[in-house]
Amino acid sequence: MELPVLTVGQFDLIYNGFSLAIASMGAAFIFFMIGRSQVAPKYRPALLVSGLVVAIAAYHYFRIFESWGAAYQLDAAMGQYVPSGEAFNDAYRYIDWLLTVPLLLVEAVAVLALSRQQSGSLIARLSIAAVLMIALGYPGEITDSNTARFWWGLLSSVPFVYILWVLWGELGNALERQPEQVRVLVRNLRLLLLFTWGVYPIAYMAPFFGLTGAGAVVGIQVGYTIADILAKAGFGVLIYGIAREKTRADGEDPLEAPSTAAAAAS
Amino acid sequence: MELPVLTVGQFDLIYNGFSLAIASMGAAFIFFMIGRSQVAPKYRPALLVSGLVVAIAAYHYFRIFESWGAAYQLDAAMGQYVPSGEAFNDAYRYIDWLLTVPLLLVEAVAVLALSRQQSGSLIARLSIAAVLMIALGYPGEITDSNTARFWWGLLSSVPFVYILWVLWGELGNALERQPEQVRVLVRNLRLLLLFTWGVYPIAYMAPFFGLTGAGAVVGIQVGYTIADILAKAGFGVLIYGIAREKTRADGEDPLEAPSTAAAAAS
Repeated sequence: MELPVLTVGQFDLIYNGFSLAIASMGAAFIFFMIGRSQVAPKYRPALLVSGLVVAIAAYHYFRIFESWGAAYQLDAAMGQYVPSGEAFNDAYRYIDWLLTVPLLLVEAVAVLALSRQQSGSLIARLSIAAVLMIALGYPGEITDSNTARFWWGLLSSVPFVYILWVLWGELGNALERQPEQVRVLVRNLRLLLLFTWGVYPIAYMAPFFGLTGAGAVVGIQVGYTIADILAKAGFGVLIYGIAREKTRADGEDPLEAPSTAAAAAS
Repeated sequence: MELPVLTVGQFDLIYNGFSLAIASMGAAFIFFMIGRSQVAPKYRPALLVSGLVVAIAAYHYFRIFESWGAAYQLDAAMGQYVPSGEAFNDAYRYIDWLLTVPLLLVEAVAVLALSRQQSGSLIARLSIAAVLMIALGYPGEITDSNTARFWWGLLSSVPFVYILWVLWGELGNALERQPEQVRVLVRNLRLLLLFTWGVYPIAYMAPFFGLTGAGAVVGIQVGYTIADILAKAGFGVLIYGIAREKTRADGEDPLEAPSTAAAAAS
């Protein structure tokens, strides 16, 4: 995409948004890694995967932050930021999604601690659908033709709808055996996923609505950033909440144990 | 804000203050993470959150340090530092506060290990108030109009007063069931919070007092830095002290156990 001239405020909003994402993803990584010890052992794989997602995202936001800084230079006389000629590498987002979106679905399935057979089948089908969704969207993202963008976007929606169908249909049955508190949290988890993932197709279709120029760039970059923070760090915090709730329901809370030593003695 | 010409001493004082903050926050992070094992399991989430706060602050002080270095260049002939033309990105402070201030309130509530219902309600209300306080302050910080600064500052004070009211009023009742030693520490914690947080509105109002130029920049930057170190690393050390006191009072001190093996055998 052609980079427009930006006001200092517009450039800074995007720049600071990328920095916010680095800080959020980095802090979330520490939280999920250390927080593993605060849930029962069987939910720890889910927190480990949550940590992988935000670590990958922190790396990519660091790259995006650097690329954004290099793509512009301040025109002090005019008081605005002009493209430096160096490209802003938006592909980092797609590489990030290719790795993190399947992992997000793995963490959602892992925290339910279903039977091995159920989990295995769900993870395989959801991961393949996620990879197809990202891979089919990318050719449409980089094309200049709105027609090509439309058809790739439509193809990419097929696995997206399949993922929603699995999460709402099949997962619904598996949820009936979960405690009431957990069912509420899983419902929130699915709603968070629906609302945050809903941002991506809207940003994708921006060129159809004739949205170009500075306003569109700010809207798309800030929108993607907020959606990523909520869909990765926020999603992981909900996964942690579900793991804590199930740990309590299972009656094996490591935070309630008098101490590690005393617990070992009992 | 327009950057003034600084003497070498003024520039260095701010620069070295930022470096002090990076070292303090980094060391505090290590202390809280390893120190988790020195308190009873139920207080470990509070120390984990203390660690997240100083990790986020260390990241932002690293960025602030880099931005400060880039915003000035030494005029060797005149023996002073002159603005390089590159902006000093003060927004890092607000992004930092947006993440860390709600977390600071979470760590204060978490260390009390209240009932789930009490904690949940306190955390939700305090976090929302903290985000509102920061978000309403920012438009006033970046405006050049003293009138706008006054009104945004006043709006931002409403959630600030609400937070103080919750910490002194409601939390006071919850404290009555805590041991005497803990009550003293929590009183100190609230006083530290009041005095350090009191620095921010004073720095915010500097333009009202006609404070501009080199002296004001030094005062504001050094003041914010000292307040941040005390309000984050210092606050976390007090949280650790409360967690240790409560661990002793609960009679399950991991530091008193002869060794894990011996405790397991008893």
